Amino acid sequence: MTVHPAHTRVLTSDETGELAVPFTRVALTNGETFDRYCTEGPGSDPEVGLPPLRSAWIDGRGDTTPYDGRAPQLVDNGRSAIRRGEARDEWRGEKRQPRRGANVTQMAYARAGKVTEEMRYVAVREGCDVELVRSEVAAGRAIIPANVNHPESEPMIIGRRFLVKINANIGNSAVTSSIAEEVDKLTHAITWGADTVMDLSTGEDIHTTREWIIRNSPVPIGTVPIYQALEKVNGEADQLSWEVFRDTVVEQCEQGVDYMTIHAGVLLRYVPLTANRVTGIVSRGGSIMAGWCLAHHEENFLYTHFDELCEIFRQYDVSFSLGDGLRPGSTADANDEAQLSELRTLAELTARAWEHDVQVMVEGPGHVPLHLVEENVRLQQDWCHGAPFYTLGPLATDIAPGYDHITSAIGAATIAMHGTAMLCYVTPKEHLGLPNRDDVKTGVITYKLAAHAADVAKGHPGARDWDDALSKARFEFRWRDQFALSLDPVTAESFHDETLPAENAKTA
Amino acid sequence: MTVHPAHTRVLTSDETGELAVPFTRVALTNGETFDRYCTEGPGSDPEVGLPPLRSAWIDGRGDTTPYDGRAPQLVDNGRSAIRRGEARDEWRGEKRQPRRGANVTQMAYARAGKVTEEMRYVAVREGCDVELVRSEVAAGRAIIPANVNHPESEPMIIGRRFLVKINANIGNSAVTSSIAEEVDKLTHAITWGADTVMDLSTGEDIHTTREWIIRNSPVPIGTVPIYQALEKVNGEADQLSWEVFRDTVVEQCEQGVDYMTIHAGVLLRYVPLTANRVTGIVSRGGSIMAGWCLAHHEENFLYTHFDELCEIFRQYDVSFSLGDGLRPGSTADANDEAQLSELRTLAELTARAWEHDVQVMVEGPGHVPLHLVEENVRLQQDWCHGAPFYTLGPLATDIAPGYDHITSAIGAATIAMHGTAMLCYVTPKEHLGLPNRDDVKTGVITYKLAAHAADVAKGHPGARDWDDALSKARFEFRWRDQFALSLDPVTAESFHDETLPAENAKTA
Repeated sequence: MTVHPAHTRVLTSDETGELAVPFTRVALTNGETFDRYCTEGPGSDPEVGLPPLRSAWIDGRGDTTPYDGRAPQLVDNGRSAIRRGEARDEWRGEKRQPRRGANVTQMAYARAGKVTEEMRYVAVREGCDVELVRSEVAAGRAIIPANVNHPESEPMIIGRRFLVKINANIGNSAVTSSIAEEVDKLTHAITWGADTVMDLSTGEDIHTTREWIIRNSPVPIGTVPIYQALEKVNGEADQLSWEVFRDTVVEQCEQGVDYMTIHAGVLLRYVPLTANRVTGIVSRGGSIMAGWCLAHHEENFLYTHFDELCEIFRQYDVSFSLGDGLRPGSTADANDEAQLSELRTLAELTARAWEHDVQVMVEGPGHVPLHLVEENVRLQQDWCHGAPFYTLGPLATDIAPGYDHITSAIGAATIAMHGTAMLCYVTPKEHLGLPNRDDVKTGVITYKLAAHAADVAKGHPGARDWDDALSKARFEFRWRDQFALSLDPVTAESFHDETLPAENAKTA
Repeated sequence: MTVHPAHTRVLTSDETGELAVPFTRVALTNGETFDRYCTEGPGSDPEVGLPPLRSAWIDGRGDTTPYDGRAPQLVDNGRSAIRRGEARDEWRGEKRQPRRGANVTQMAYARAGKVTEEMRYVAVREGCDVELVRSEVAAGRAIIPANVNHPESEPMIIGRRFLVKINANIGNSAVTSSIAEEVDKLTHAITWGADTVMDLSTGEDIHTTREWIIRNSPVPIGTVPIYQALEKVNGEADQLSWEVFRDTVVEQCEQGVDYMTIHAGVLLRYVPLTANRVTGIVSRGGSIMAGWCLAHHEENFLYTHFDELCEIFRQYDVSFSLGDGLRPGSTADANDEAQLSELRTLAELTARAWEHDVQVMVEGPGHVPLHLVEENVRLQQDWCHGAPFYTLGPLATDIAPGYDHITSAIGAATIAMHGTAMLCYVTPKEHLGLPNRDDVKTGVITYKLAAHAADVAKGHPGARDWDDALSKARFEFRWRDQFALSLDPVTAESFHDETLPAENAKTA
């Protein structure tokens, strides 16, 4: 569904004529058109899901085979499924695993000099040479999150040489929301421009909710598997084990999750570094793992089993999003020893994942005063050998709960200008409650404008064309075109009409 | 009126015990308190106005005398007053003029080594040494906008060594609003933290509306007198003359306007520099003056009569806000020759105003991509000898009408971090329509957070204490304190209650 009558979907290919890459074409009243990057996918009936766009490509490579996969368990859907004795609305997508010895990651192909359909698709979307895509993926400076079990996804790329991307978090919790609501939030987020979506569900029906989301998602889906693993041990962090976690990861890999946040950098010896902070450990994953380390006085099992995780991820082409469990939760704690120690470990883990040809991005803060923002990218890019940086904001001040989409957009635009590849959105409800549908939209639009401001500031080829088209329409009083070209035509038009509702006020 | 039950007004003095400088004291549930800068004044009955706080100080200096001033004219209140044959709701404040030969500007006092009550008041507000205030004003690096005919104002300072300030624009237009509505917007803006307010009225009852606003305003009031002058010549720019303009300026000086935007830098020879821009001239004042220059093929009368303007301003201590009539209206036009040529002229005019001991700030853009923002401050500070910079945003991208409070807050936080002294707010209605009461609040809160983010980034003494207090409350789950300390407690609490309305969810 497009958001304005002047918008249509057009499909483009490279010289092979084999691809159908969607763009949003904006028809202007002066006869010109303007094409925009499009994230919303072809649209789906939630109960049917999307067509498996990439199945033919994956099958064509001949390096995977269908298999039954891990047997579903009641615990996958949480405690109420166990109580009921059955899961709700079950759904199983196709499962693929690689043939023995095959390495099916985009990084492995890129390093072998093989150009995949995914890379060609991405090159059309970005309007760049496919060799740039291949070489950046091969070098680890960009990732194409594309699990072989999520064939419904339209390939996209995350890397500093490409358009800055944004992620929207959705997910249920113990207090709110249903499966249908979460699929609706997914659709709403991608309609407004989310490039990836993370499902952070912690409530009931986690497994099934995720299945519905993935089967309906044209964008890569990310998760934080420790959240589900914790549910499986009744929320008691010290009861977690590598075995429970491993099984959860396999469960999610088989469903088609494209990237997973793994808090493997929260080492036992770093935990005391947070003792004198203003806000200690605020990352949920970080505090779960710190709690486990302290309870057992053992090293983080995600760190000690990291190579095994790599082995699993490479079988499905799941990308790491190396979590910053010790990120600062306040401007006071920014760029401190705890944060930077963990970053050094994430750099080490990046190199280890790359030995397995597994794609990696690295997560970043959080809360950072504006003068310290650039240092975060500089150190991450330097230490992590250019692996894509994926940051939450950062929030430039702590004093404005209710407006943290804005405090964080300030930091986000700045950090992206300096080289961050993807921005995780923050909604107005941050720190206060769970985002509803409107909050999701506000968060997405706010982050789209921050990402685009960074693209313009970076001098990204063609980025300013959009600004120029809109500014020209504005200068020529082509109101309808100004609305059609804006990130949110609905809001722009309704604001205009509040003051000047007359129809002729839009044309003169 | 305070915005939260935990807020009270406290009054502080310096060692003389003679001042009563207001702060907002936030009482926390752990027994601590946190004091915040307070802009909202003591509150007033709109029909009575505020007590004239500064009258005794002004009288005490013995360098002004009461006088009758210019006789009111029907044209001061626009065409409908002329039609009616009478003005509506007239009101005349006291008028003062300097004794012969006296120079009553804060800059003149500061340069003579005299510390005024206004400077002492400001020093208490800012928590700094009064000598810093005096020396910065003397050097022209800061201004205290304080017309002798606006004794109701609580002195404040604008300069890079002090807290970053924000301005809110209000004002009626031909299509909307009443006198009472504008006074209500004033009160709403200062309640939420506007440090100055500009009355940009262009509709009916301009003179009277301004009188009501000034008599009720504890913050400095700015205007763009060319708007009213244009009304006096029936909106025909080529009919403007120095005489009409001069008379309008005297009218506004006598009412107590504290600073005026004067587009004296739009020189005839600069107008052609805008010909190839994407968005030409977008400043209203700029296009009025450019139109006049072209129609008459003469130099801008604001430039040719600038010394006469200085003579008028020094009689009342009105500060210049040197307008950037050629500011870029799109990211495409940022930092171009038209903009920078005008800035060089504004630098020349700054020095000329200082010869008359008249206070000056310089206005800046507009629309600027993020990587070009810092250059704007650097050049302005360098060329204009450190005179305070006062910028509108700037907007970091043009693609998000409806969200331009956010696109501009990104630019605003960045430009303020690099030394801009005051930020003119942008509301969500920018480019689309006139801001209503809610838009005023959204604009103010957005700019308060941007200004504070800049204070923190600059390492301004004590700025981060606010963040730390709120973050500590957050970490300790003191929800009530988190709300009370936030910029907008009402929104923070209501967002929290949407998800977790139970009373005990605020204490645990």
